[in-house]
Amino acid sequence: MRKVDHVGIAVADLDEARRTWDALLGQTPVVEDVPTQKVRTATYPCGIELVAPQSPESPISRFLAKRGPGIHHVTLAVDDIAGELARLKSQGVKLVNEAPVKGAGGLPVAFLQPVGGVLVELKEKRR
Amino acid sequence: MRKVDHVGIAVADLDEARRTWDALLGQTPVVEDVPTQKVRTATYPCGIELVAPQSPESPISRFLAKRGPGIHHVTLAVDDIAGELARLKSQGVKLVNEAPVKGAGGLPVAFLQPVGGVLVELKEKRR
Repeated sequence: MRKVDHVGIAVADLDEARRTWDALLGQTPVVEDVPTQKVRTATYPCGIELVAPQSPESPISRFLAKRGPGIHHVTLAVDDIAGELARLKSQGVKLVNEAPVKGAGGLPVAFLQPVGGVLVELKEKRR
Repeated sequence: MRKVDHVGIAVADLDEARRTWDALLGQTPVVEDVPTQKVRTATYPCGIELVAPQSPESPISRFLAKRGPGIHHVTLAVDDIAGELARLKSQGVKLVNEAPVKGAGGLPVAFLQPVGGVLVELKEKRR
């Protein structure tokens, strides 16, 4: 595990949330659809990622219904996602994605089952 | 705002949580008492910080009682914390700490009032 890459924040309305976060961070995000998660994301250079559902079946819709808006996940950059998933599995860590899927930026990502109330995503990212 | 510095995770028992996170992250944290927040922290090189209350009056005790363990805050590194706090205040952002206090590592930190369900901490940190 190399470094926290970003923090994913669940929001109901991306445009409304952007008004708040653009001003707070003083930055402009990259906006992108991520079909595998049925979400649209707005990622700021500082590592804050707003995540809005694009379907009632999105995991973010369920999160918002249960918890309301707030931090949804933390993403750790790794050099070798397949290797990390194998290491975690051998230690008994439960995985949501047994194999990587395509995340924001087209990069390979995988979610672990929540650990101590925390949803962790791994992202394979070139240094 | 420069970059997400770390993610603070509220835990009830630091030693128990460390067993899980040491193995998951494959790293050893720096453990430190932070008297201003009445907490003990374990900070991993990757930017995960476990935060355990050292008193029932700690904000972390209240968080755990209300929400259970999970992500408590996200910390953004800034070059000039006083300047950022003044900028945010001028934009109507509500602050918990009007002036910086001493955080982990003895660095100046300040919390904002929660924004969209997210507790944000600023930390002034040399590049």
